[in-house]
Amino acid sequence: MTYCVGLLLDAGMVLLSDTRTNAGVDNISVFGKTFVEQVPGERVMALLTAGNLAVTQAVWNRLQEGVTLGGQRQTLASVPTMFRAAQLVGEAVRQVFDADGPALRAQGISFDVSIMLGGQIAGSAPRLFLVYAAGNFIEATADTPFLQIGEHKYGKPILDRVLTPATPLADGVTLALISMDSTLRSNLTVGLPIDLTVIRRDALQVGLRRRIGEDDPYFAFLRQRWSESLREAYQALPRPDWLG
Amino acid sequence: MTYCVGLLLDAGMVLLSDTRTNAGVDNISVFGKTFVEQVPGERVMALLTAGNLAVTQAVWNRLQEGVTLGGQRQTLASVPTMFRAAQLVGEAVRQVFDADGPALRAQGISFDVSIMLGGQIAGSAPRLFLVYAAGNFIEATADTPFLQIGEHKYGKPILDRVLTPATPLADGVTLALISMDSTLRSNLTVGLPIDLTVIRRDALQVGLRRRIGEDDPYFAFLRQRWSESLREAYQALPRPDWLG
Repeated sequence: MTYCVGLLLDAGMVLLSDTRTNAGVDNISVFGKTFVEQVPGERVMALLTAGNLAVTQAVWNRLQEGVTLGGQRQTLASVPTMFRAAQLVGEAVRQVFDADGPALRAQGISFDVSIMLGGQIAGSAPRLFLVYAAGNFIEATADTPFLQIGEHKYGKPILDRVLTPATPLADGVTLALISMDSTLRSNLTVGLPIDLTVIRRDALQVGLRRRIGEDDPYFAFLRQRWSESLREAYQALPRPDWLG
Repeated sequence: MTYCVGLLLDAGMVLLSDTRTNAGVDNISVFGKTFVEQVPGERVMALLTAGNLAVTQAVWNRLQEGVTLGGQRQTLASVPTMFRAAQLVGEAVRQVFDADGPALRAQGISFDVSIMLGGQIAGSAPRLFLVYAAGNFIEATADTPFLQIGEHKYGKPILDRVLTPATPLADGVTLALISMDSTLRSNLTVGLPIDLTVIRRDALQVGLRRRIGEDDPYFAFLRQRWSESLREAYQALPRPDWLG
């Protein structure tokens, strides 16, 4: 399993992925699920991937080699818009499905992939997409300025309650880490370390990439403090007076 | 969908279920999912149900009419132990599967049912079980003193962090309501009103049954205050100093 979350804020994007892959519970590995493509000053994009690792790696490899879209061989470094970038990722997913789908089906393995694509190209606004296994996609908007892939439920309530496009970047980082913490605690197939990517609006290059493990002092403190805060908040709630 | 949660505390049991059923998103109804069987002073049991409504109602009807277990016609009012009560519920589930499973399968409908059974019989400790669609079951223990059925993920993190068998009953009620609130907010197929059942240890009868709707002052206050508390707790967290 996987948990990835992407926030599309006025100030930029916060993208966070875990690194756990498992081929059965007795075969657990660490694989990065965040991939960055940038031409500093001109464009910056990050992909976060969930699903079958062979599929997501195949998609990334095809994107690196170039995918034919509208009769032209394109890469994420060449597409003119973020919309085309999302189309390109969708086309790469469809090509992998065409190539590997029948053989996977013959083995009873589902073609399982979802990809978050965030980025900005000079002259346009930052955009954040979620590409499905069918190669179609949706986009985050101001109404719901975040997207999630993988094991999304545990980490969703805090985002629903707090996040708005006006949330500052540093607050977004804290929020994404809390959301990840709730998921890590409840689902063993989502695991440390986690990969944080921050892209500031109009910077047109990655602002920060940070791998966060057990020993990261800020994350360790955050997890402990958040746990204490929840317990304190619950303790401070009034109890029902009708229980007798 | 459904969300039901049951807490097995030293002081007794807190059982909470929603009431929403849906046959498609355009056909939503209110059905109670909590059923009580008691012989005051001798035994008290409550069933909380999730899954196909025709299946769960059929199970309850069979339990009311009596189910043959070990060659003897039994009801929840006649079984000698809570273990036998769980077996009886499991047997009722299996009989419904035998009766309706093939016809459901022919329509492409899965035999979807899970039932929580909590209760106490005079002379024995309170016990809380979760009966699966196969009629087998598990039991809550001191290590994990709660069980959930239905849409369990949103409401699990707070239980994981806070609940112990020593949690007082009133605290358990507050906690179950918070857990339900997180689920209600994130999954529209779980809906108000909700049914709360409290069974005190050794009381051998239901201590409280309360239907809680939009207009319940305590629940309304709790939801608002919990939301504020989470926002305040998140606001009070330090932000990363390495973001620059």
